[in-house]
Amino acid sequence: MKSHILDGNAIATKIRSEIKRDVELMVRDGLRAPHLHVIMIGSNTASETYVRLKLKDCSEVGITGSLSQLNDSVTMSEVIDLIDKVNADDQTDAAILQKPLPSHLDSDAIDFHLSPDKDVDGLHPVNLGLLLQGVPRFIPATPAAVRELIVRSNINIDGENIVIIGRSNLVGKPLALLLAQKNTRGNATVTIAHTGTKNLKEVTSNADIIVAATGHPNTVTADMVRPGAVVIDVGVNRVDDLSRKQGYRLVGDVDFENVKMVTSAITPVPGGVGPITRAMLLKNTLNARELKY
Amino acid sequence: MKSHILDGNAIATKIRSEIKRDVELMVRDGLRAPHLHVIMIGSNTASETYVRLKLKDCSEVGITGSLSQLNDSVTMSEVIDLIDKVNADDQTDAAILQKPLPSHLDSDAIDFHLSPDKDVDGLHPVNLGLLLQGVPRFIPATPAAVRELIVRSNINIDGENIVIIGRSNLVGKPLALLLAQKNTRGNATVTIAHTGTKNLKEVTSNADIIVAATGHPNTVTADMVRPGAVVIDVGVNRVDDLSRKQGYRLVGDVDFENVKMVTSAITPVPGGVGPITRAMLLKNTLNARELKY
Repeated sequence: MKSHILDGNAIATKIRSEIKRDVELMVRDGLRAPHLHVIMIGSNTASETYVRLKLKDCSEVGITGSLSQLNDSVTMSEVIDLIDKVNADDQTDAAILQKPLPSHLDSDAIDFHLSPDKDVDGLHPVNLGLLLQGVPRFIPATPAAVRELIVRSNINIDGENIVIIGRSNLVGKPLALLLAQKNTRGNATVTIAHTGTKNLKEVTSNADIIVAATGHPNTVTADMVRPGAVVIDVGVNRVDDLSRKQGYRLVGDVDFENVKMVTSAITPVPGGVGPITRAMLLKNTLNARELKY
Repeated sequence: MKSHILDGNAIATKIRSEIKRDVELMVRDGLRAPHLHVIMIGSNTASETYVRLKLKDCSEVGITGSLSQLNDSVTMSEVIDLIDKVNADDQTDAAILQKPLPSHLDSDAIDFHLSPDKDVDGLHPVNLGLLLQGVPRFIPATPAAVRELIVRSNINIDGENIVIIGRSNLVGKPLALLLAQKNTRGNATVTIAHTGTKNLKEVTSNADIIVAATGHPNTVTADMVRPGAVVIDVGVNRVDDLSRKQGYRLVGDVDFENVKMVTSAITPVPGGVGPITRAMLLKNTLNARELKY
């Protein structure tokens, strides 16, 4: 079977161009462009790269961005003070805290303190609760990206059997709720599988769509996939590869080369869910701005 | 097969006696007993009965109760004022609004206004979000009751295939999250099925445990159940029965008489999940009190 390789970069480009157009229309109407504030604590090369990319993504679609960089030794009350200022600032529509935070800080308490109206990462319990209730405000970027990828690839969700492998708070659980929701982008029969699942192969064999979000390479192998099924790979894992300059390469949770021989459609890693996830942060930031008028 | 009929009344009696003991210990330690405030708006015979039962349940375990009865024609701002008072009152640990509310009131806005720390019905998005995050504070009474019933009946959850039929905000969705959670009262492979599910029989046939929460009699019939499976019936439906004084009788979502011939264990209606659900409100009220010291 010739599998269709789903092109996350192309979908992300399309989403970004739609956001850019909406921001342009907003500005043309005399409204302020959306503004995202990024809080980064301590120094971490990977985090610095991610933050730079996020601000670059913003600037490319006309979203303005700003950055607070706090020292590694910052106290909890200094962080809370900064978040209070961000919450109170009318010119800031959206804010995120780049993770990981230094271990002496209470990450949950910090997430809880950011106003749910500006929480474009969708981490606040209010936003997860609204998602559970079927009236989401900010959907965490990864599950939003998976749904967007399926819908924009014209893959049917309605009535399909979808197996999600992984039950994390920011991917597996919210994605299960989104895809089971009774609406035109949901209505699937959804199974949540995980490390406690017995006979995973039996469970996935019944799936029309498999979403792998485990953080382990080769979680999904060809023998687990019904011929013609769709496989979406959320994983991003480093595996040693001495032929590369960095000494590693990125792979997903799926044994891509073998699984693609049986699927009707499959996402690559990189270039699948990842780029769309980046675009969803911009989408949430636009939504945060639109909530204000 | 001789099915074990799970006795919800006996389990509820046990839970109530545990709560009564905890309240007694609390009072013996010089602490105030938990206090539940019930808000009822308008007149409705069924609601009045439910409220009376809830306050009676409280009194039987030593929880104090009080009631605000508002006129049918109350305005939104009068309701909000009352909730502000309840939120501010240190002597009130827990509060619920008896539903349904008159149609001119915004039920969601009212639920959102009650302090999440006192929301023992678990309706506030914060409480549903905490549940999604695996750190629940107040679990809505019905899913809490289903889990309690399974655990106290010594039915294994870990690694089992559980199919939940129904995706409501207060039963199906939170229950799916609870049972999939990695802990000693969860870790099941959970499938959320619903009206959009194709081949429901195929889905349920693989289940070790089926939970029916659809609000329709005979949703689960004997041919849908694997011999030896466990069936939990959340439904409470009125069907015409002229042989009864009221002209109806209560049935669940399961064709009990036929399904019990194939299950290893099954809940009756009434006398299954219902009485435990009532007890879980008391449990949440006790927890609300305990959160304060």
